[in-house]
Amino acid sequence: MTQAQQVKPFDYIIFGATGDLTMRKLLPAFYYRLSAGQVPHNARIIGTARSPLERSVYQDRARDALKRFVQPHDFHEDLVEQFLNMIHYVSLDGSKAESNWENLRSLLNESPQEQIRVFYFATAPNLYGAISENLHKEGLVTEESRVVLEKPIGIDLASADQINNEVGRFFKENNVFRIDHYLGKETVQDVIALRFANPALEAVWSAKYIQSVQITAAETVGVEGRAAYYDHSGALRDMVQNHLLQVLCLVAMEQPASLEADAVRDAKVKVLQSLRPMDETRLKNDTVRGQYTAGQSNGIAVPGYLQELGESSNTETYVALRAEIDNPRWNGVPFYIRTAKRLKQKVSEIVIRFKAPETSLFPQQPRSSLLVIRIQPDEGLSWSLETKNPLDDNFALQKATLDVNFSKAFDVRYPDAYERLLLDAVRGYPVLFIRRDEVEAAWRWVAPIMEAWANNEVPMTEYKAGSWGPKQAEEMLAARGDVWHEDME
Amino acid sequence: MTQAQQVKPFDYIIFGATGDLTMRKLLPAFYYRLSAGQVPHNARIIGTARSPLERSVYQDRARDALKRFVQPHDFHEDLVEQFLNMIHYVSLDGSKAESNWENLRSLLNESPQEQIRVFYFATAPNLYGAISENLHKEGLVTEESRVVLEKPIGIDLASADQINNEVGRFFKENNVFRIDHYLGKETVQDVIALRFANPALEAVWSAKYIQSVQITAAETVGVEGRAAYYDHSGALRDMVQNHLLQVLCLVAMEQPASLEADAVRDAKVKVLQSLRPMDETRLKNDTVRGQYTAGQSNGIAVPGYLQELGESSNTETYVALRAEIDNPRWNGVPFYIRTAKRLKQKVSEIVIRFKAPETSLFPQQPRSSLLVIRIQPDEGLSWSLETKNPLDDNFALQKATLDVNFSKAFDVRYPDAYERLLLDAVRGYPVLFIRRDEVEAAWRWVAPIMEAWANNEVPMTEYKAGSWGPKQAEEMLAARGDVWHEDME
Repeated sequence: MTQAQQVKPFDYIIFGATGDLTMRKLLPAFYYRLSAGQVPHNARIIGTARSPLERSVYQDRARDALKRFVQPHDFHEDLVEQFLNMIHYVSLDGSKAESNWENLRSLLNESPQEQIRVFYFATAPNLYGAISENLHKEGLVTEESRVVLEKPIGIDLASADQINNEVGRFFKENNVFRIDHYLGKETVQDVIALRFANPALEAVWSAKYIQSVQITAAETVGVEGRAAYYDHSGALRDMVQNHLLQVLCLVAMEQPASLEADAVRDAKVKVLQSLRPMDETRLKNDTVRGQYTAGQSNGIAVPGYLQELGESSNTETYVALRAEIDNPRWNGVPFYIRTAKRLKQKVSEIVIRFKAPETSLFPQQPRSSLLVIRIQPDEGLSWSLETKNPLDDNFALQKATLDVNFSKAFDVRYPDAYERLLLDAVRGYPVLFIRRDEVEAAWRWVAPIMEAWANNEVPMTEYKAGSWGPKQAEEMLAARGDVWHEDME
Repeated sequence: MTQAQQVKPFDYIIFGATGDLTMRKLLPAFYYRLSAGQVPHNARIIGTARSPLERSVYQDRARDALKRFVQPHDFHEDLVEQFLNMIHYVSLDGSKAESNWENLRSLLNESPQEQIRVFYFATAPNLYGAISENLHKEGLVTEESRVVLEKPIGIDLASADQINNEVGRFFKENNVFRIDHYLGKETVQDVIALRFANPALEAVWSAKYIQSVQITAAETVGVEGRAAYYDHSGALRDMVQNHLLQVLCLVAMEQPASLEADAVRDAKVKVLQSLRPMDETRLKNDTVRGQYTAGQSNGIAVPGYLQELGESSNTETYVALRAEIDNPRWNGVPFYIRTAKRLKQKVSEIVIRFKAPETSLFPQQPRSSLLVIRIQPDEGLSWSLETKNPLDDNFALQKATLDVNFSKAFDVRYPDAYERLLLDAVRGYPVLFIRRDEVEAAWRWVAPIMEAWANNEVPMTEYKAGSWGPKQAEEMLAARGDVWHEDME
């Protein structure tokens, strides 16, 4: 079996190193990759943030983070020690020219010239430009230095352009790694393998055989303590513009010329450019936004979004869209996209609903066959087919579902998306990162929706916490004879 | 869920009622259908054979048969009593005009006119004509009387023709039910549901996407006590000419106009007629016959076929053929058929091997995707697909197998093929029986193989009991870059 390879020695400089993302995702991801033998002993992780902390204090925080976010059976004391020895800390305000840059420089100078340098921006996006400029002024951006940009890159096309321009002054586009952790998920990448390594699937991957595609990212959690922060983005900006449109691109794209980054991105951006723009009619018929009201989550009573926020709001916690792709392959096939907080079940999945045959051969009408790609949890595939009902003396049909659970089948732990992506930046392997024109094309398609919603041209709906969303989303599908996955037979 | 319906009252007259088939298959099948509520209380099973037995003695034998061949948890004393009350016995030599016909007639006359009458011939096939004639002479063949013919119907085209002619003098073709119990198997019928109720499958069901088809019926048992009997038929006559060619027909046929019997049989016979005839070259290259030698079966030492028989023999216990179908859908796709005694594993299955893509997209060549229809045991489906290897940082591929086990998924007992077929004859539902022209087309295709083998134009090979067969069968596939299922990755 192919194994992950060790990467070259690196210095990973994290801006925003005391933040939640670093503690919850980045440090555990590095630890797991060290544990897998991919991180060389002379690699370093250099945390920076404004807080004046001793290195040892930061190391203690890192240890606490591993305690919380690494599985207990993966927490090995000697490996943790080795990991903490890789960790450094520099107190630095990256957005300030007059900050403590000398300390960072001297630390970086300890490494040999060929040490790979990656800057990871996990700060507020409006600081990305200033940090880039300061890094440049301080002479820390070498020809090969990479920069990883966390989302959100802007809140619309204009602000994204501005950030990309500012970063682009100091980093070449091919050194800019815009992260979309959905692309780091193994089962999202599986879409590429499934389609292009199995002709029997790709042969039916078109409007001729597919009735609809559903891409769902459902969460059971609410916004809880983060309501004030969340209220500035909402589900459309937080999930659709980036993650779900990226998934849609992989499902819909033509076969790329190769799996080189630009070939794949060319194929993806073409999908984004082919998305039929939302006009006034479609904004009304094909977009649904909602806010959860008080209800139950896993059997526990929970408040509604506005109660958590403590004021009125025009921000959606639910979004469902019907996208269409104007090209010969997908003409007429709806791509339903939805994501929300406080739904009934935590699930991210792609549902390919194949057309039922038009036939009078059987005593009953055959139903659609479904191919479900489970992104998380329970990574795997299922495929439901009409088979013969064994209790029937004629040819009555009965659905049978073929299934595979990947982690059982392969007997492996499924790595978190960040594990893959952090090291891809070291390897200079950008295929799972977003090119600038993709970001722009995605914002461009989302813009009319944001505008119409901001102007209340589409009413805000309500759904009960713990439900599957507002009835308007059901109606949107029913109008075209479709249903959401959870309501299918 | 659709349920099996009760059939109309019937009298089922079995010729050969003391034989192995009746005890092992027919009586248990009737019992299970009674248990399922399909057999009305005024139905009767009338056993006939030459032995002069009291009805009560025959009923005792029937009880013993149920004890042996019905699952203990399905053996219910009150139901068994009810079943035995349905059973009658007439001592009668059906092939003799001067036999005890009066007893049978008076028994049948007890039933009302509309009672459905089915004659089941489980005797030696050379008696079928005589029994038919006697039934006719005695006036027992009503307009609607059906006759069920057990295999083998002849040992070649000429003898099959003769039997069919003789029976055909007294029964109309649409009242003749030629049994092929493979068609009674639920997962064989599933081929029809899978193909024609799932357009995503039927779309790739052709030479464009399919590399080869393998139809295997492997047994672990040897001929044991039945060597002398078996030596008159052999694997080709016993399994290929009927069962496996029928399975091939369902896999390969065009969509029938309906699921009416003649529509399906028209589609099947067209396949048989399109089988490319075996010529001298193909007889040598594309047929393999063999006899097992001493070896192991499930860990126990077992003798070879010739040792069991006690003399030399030209009869095969193994056959593997490469069939080709000359039509646009299947042009160039080999259909490998094999069956044998004393193989490593008991399995009947259809393996659809899809073509691997020609692509340089991935770091390795993708492999064939396999759809396996498991006929028995462990009825179900599996489908292997190339997916992404989750341990690889690039796009290395890994096979994942989606699977469904029908009896688990549907939580039902899978009925034996005879249960379905016995009552289909009562219902006058002939779709799962063989029409005369099918029998003839099958014998016609098999004839040159029988002849060449009889003349030793193709050498007899050997294989060890408990192996997967002779190496010549592997070589037959290897010559075309193919391998048997058990050797696939």
